[in-house]
Amino acid sequence: MARSTTLILLLLTVTLISFFTVSGATAPPTYRRRRHTSPLTHIHRRRPIVAAAAGGGVPTQVRYETKYYEQRLDHFDALPASYRTFPQRYLVNGTYWGGKTSPVFLYAGNEGNVELFTNNTGFMWELAPRFRALLLFVEHRYYGKSFPFGSEEAAFRNTSTVGYLTTTQAVADLATLVQSLKSNLSAHAAPVIVFGGSYGGMLAAWVRMKYPHVVMGAVASSAPILGFYGLADPYAFYDVISNDFKSESKNCHDVLMKSWGELDKALSNDAGRADLNSTFKMCRASTVDAIPDLLDTALTYSAMTDYPTSSGFLTPLPPYPVKEMCRAIDHPKSGNDTFARIKGALDVYYNHTGAEPCLGDATESDPYGMFDGWDWQACTEMILMTYGVRNGTVFPPEPFNFTDLLAGCRASTGLPPRPYWIPTEFGGFDIKHVLRRSASNIIFFNGLRDPWSSGGVLKSISNSIIALVEPKGSHHVDLRFSTKEDPEWLKQVRIKETRIIAHWLRQYYKEETIDSP
Amino acid sequence: MARSTTLILLLLTVTLISFFTVSGATAPPTYRRRRHTSPLTHIHRRRPIVAAAAGGGVPTQVRYETKYYEQRLDHFDALPASYRTFPQRYLVNGTYWGGKTSPVFLYAGNEGNVELFTNNTGFMWELAPRFRALLLFVEHRYYGKSFPFGSEEAAFRNTSTVGYLTTTQAVADLATLVQSLKSNLSAHAAPVIVFGGSYGGMLAAWVRMKYPHVVMGAVASSAPILGFYGLADPYAFYDVISNDFKSESKNCHDVLMKSWGELDKALSNDAGRADLNSTFKMCRASTVDAIPDLLDTALTYSAMTDYPTSSGFLTPLPPYPVKEMCRAIDHPKSGNDTFARIKGALDVYYNHTGAEPCLGDATESDPYGMFDGWDWQACTEMILMTYGVRNGTVFPPEPFNFTDLLAGCRASTGLPPRPYWIPTEFGGFDIKHVLRRSASNIIFFNGLRDPWSSGGVLKSISNSIIALVEPKGSHHVDLRFSTKEDPEWLKQVRIKETRIIAHWLRQYYKEETIDSP
Repeated sequence: MARSTTLILLLLTVTLISFFTVSGATAPPTYRRRRHTSPLTHIHRRRPIVAAAAGGGVPTQVRYETKYYEQRLDHFDALPASYRTFPQRYLVNGTYWGGKTSPVFLYAGNEGNVELFTNNTGFMWELAPRFRALLLFVEHRYYGKSFPFGSEEAAFRNTSTVGYLTTTQAVADLATLVQSLKSNLSAHAAPVIVFGGSYGGMLAAWVRMKYPHVVMGAVASSAPILGFYGLADPYAFYDVISNDFKSESKNCHDVLMKSWGELDKALSNDAGRADLNSTFKMCRASTVDAIPDLLDTALTYSAMTDYPTSSGFLTPLPPYPVKEMCRAIDHPKSGNDTFARIKGALDVYYNHTGAEPCLGDATESDPYGMFDGWDWQACTEMILMTYGVRNGTVFPPEPFNFTDLLAGCRASTGLPPRPYWIPTEFGGFDIKHVLRRSASNIIFFNGLRDPWSSGGVLKSISNSIIALVEPKGSHHVDLRFSTKEDPEWLKQVRIKETRIIAHWLRQYYKEETIDSP
Repeated sequence: MARSTTLILLLLTVTLISFFTVSGATAPPTYRRRRHTSPLTHIHRRRPIVAAAAGGGVPTQVRYETKYYEQRLDHFDALPASYRTFPQRYLVNGTYWGGKTSPVFLYAGNEGNVELFTNNTGFMWELAPRFRALLLFVEHRYYGKSFPFGSEEAAFRNTSTVGYLTTTQAVADLATLVQSLKSNLSAHAAPVIVFGGSYGGMLAAWVRMKYPHVVMGAVASSAPILGFYGLADPYAFYDVISNDFKSESKNCHDVLMKSWGELDKALSNDAGRADLNSTFKMCRASTVDAIPDLLDTALTYSAMTDYPTSSGFLTPLPPYPVKEMCRAIDHPKSGNDTFARIKGALDVYYNHTGAEPCLGDATESDPYGMFDGWDWQACTEMILMTYGVRNGTVFPPEPFNFTDLLAGCRASTGLPPRPYWIPTEFGGFDIKHVLRRSASNIIFFNGLRDPWSSGGVLKSISNSIIALVEPKGSHHVDLRFSTKEDPEWLKQVRIKETRIIAHWLRQYYKEETIDSP
């Protein structure tokens, strides 16, 4: 029995793993989503990052110097090994900076090459001139070019080298790097505002909570800080995706829901496989087994990146890709059967440009350097609730089984997973009362089309811990470069965020009795 | 040249080291306080703890169960070694507890055997019945009976074993232990208020700041959280002690100030040494070299524990020992020379009970298990500013030399000291603005007679971050058992603290819509 592994990149953020067990020709069909032993982030297509931003190359204002900071390996122990350092990459643009008391806008790098986020976080680039801000994009340890032990290979050699890849270390990295940089710039009084999307948004919120003396405000976009066991409904993630498709059309939802059984059946016999190969225009006949994976990925990512304008964060997509996929399903260009409809939907996701001659020839590449690191994080600490699928969704159902999930992680890493650690370290339960009394200056943006909103802070907590919730919004859409086509609601979100940041800064300068620079 | 090392225990808290370099018979006198390479806490007398509390045995209400929690060795990494556990001792009294929603009063154990603090933190014992609180005293890792690696010896074997002794780990220990205990008691909604004095007070403040979702309020008594380089005047610690003596009498101050030169001179020749041996009634003639150390210790501790009632926290003392020492100096019982006066002052500190036949026969014992651990902490992270002595104090002057201090620490531990880490991790600069916006529910008590007040928070920051400053107060005097002889100001301090705690709890129950238990 062949087993095809499909792994879904959750927009560089959090890993949803779906294993499809597909039968060979002789075995009975047994498609099912499986809890994965080792959540991996796979990207099915190698897409040049330069095509990513706003659908047409990196905007000209994205200019930076690349620097490295000698970062401590282990902030919290005093073992001899703790004192080792590694070069942590950061990108800096000082052209807009107003000087020593002007703000520093810090991006909390996610689980990937920091350039990806630098190029796509247009909001910061667009805000910088207005606020005369220094722009600082810090790469997360064990990603991009920020590897301890001399190389990526050495960093991931075994648990004794990768074990320094933890969220608390990453948050402390941000604090120490910023303190050092401010000191070097003699800018002790410069207010620091941290931005982050997705996992980076979680880091942004947490560095504000844990190091309020370093960072005076945070824009945490699509940050599922409540996405942990006991805090989030483990089925909610796929519910959101399924409802996105259902909101476009009931037929679209139903076709998708039923497609899995039909794919399963076709894959179980030679005639069916030949039919799939032909209908889906597979690059190689042997890759028909990957079709369910390809569909799973397309559904998940199109929902996450259901942006109102064309985009290319990870793959080139039209505006509103969910709507486009449903249009392809409801009004197929050729043929009327389920497979023709599904093929049309996949083309929206995998062949928006029309340049791909065939489907499924993707290498399982990792252009943003995410797989190794996030595999580890998602099975040690960052065990986010993205594992259950209810009956009646656009995915094959899968009961949530926490025990199996943890056992799989344990088998994968060789270490006991720590699902309760993040809520112990960073909180989450009773967040309303806790943050109201012990935190301030955080914006939590969430778009309700984004499955990650299921773990987000959706209600304002105080007059300085503000939830901005946009029903039509998707995954950290607010942080993207603005375009002429942006809908009014998106413009308004960014206007609100800008006003809140301006208010924080005015308040800071007033309290610190610093003349506003 | 013989070198006598005197080390001063700063009431179990922070280490002041003074090395006296004393000449042998032939060398010229060269007393001077030296920066120590390895701050050690030495206690000169073995005093039974049972005699400590309120000057007459442990009060009858001090009854507890001793338990152990399997604590994670390293909270912040995911190395194989991080997952090791050690038995962390905690003492618990549930007799007053009102049940699942009633408060937990947590003591953040200092750098020593937790029983010492349990027996001496009478304030918690006296509050418990009123608030129907569970009492929980948690021992700090690497002290008492809470050793990783199986034994004290193994824990301190080398830097690879002692390197897990850090403040951040200790603070996380408190958070995880409390979460686990509450879970086991099904008391998720029970509000936790943390108490601590001295280093324990620092931990109390920090666990409230870093884990507000675990601890809802903190009583941080005599907690020098601002005692770090760049935050505190490195000379202020000895200034306070010197001013304590000066406030009793100018003559007392001047006799002490001049005594060092006379001691130095006498120790430099045989006749002088014989005179000292006779005047000071040394147990052994060879220990005359220790007289400066004994004096240094007596001055420092009597200032710190200048309690208004007789006490026996570390050594039996009369009420107001500073006043008593100055009385002995100003009105000597026998003789009129400097040495007779100093001997009288030393007797107040070392022979309050009159039971000691001679002076200086103290073993350098460590009855509370503090030396090994604090040596390490004080030279790695907890580098508190207690090293400079100005001209014109009751101590021999010593310029503050940070470079030498750090070099000495480095030589001692073999690792680079991290003097900037604690302010990076826990803050301190601009604390007024930072805590006002990002923290709440902390009481900072400081007595201005206490040299540690030089690193304390002495101004209220908000209506819930309250500085209680008592000019006549000494080191965490508020936490001690009350006595009939307590002065009115001390009663008022405790009344204020009690009212603030009651307010926090009312607010908590109201916000959480829990019926006040």
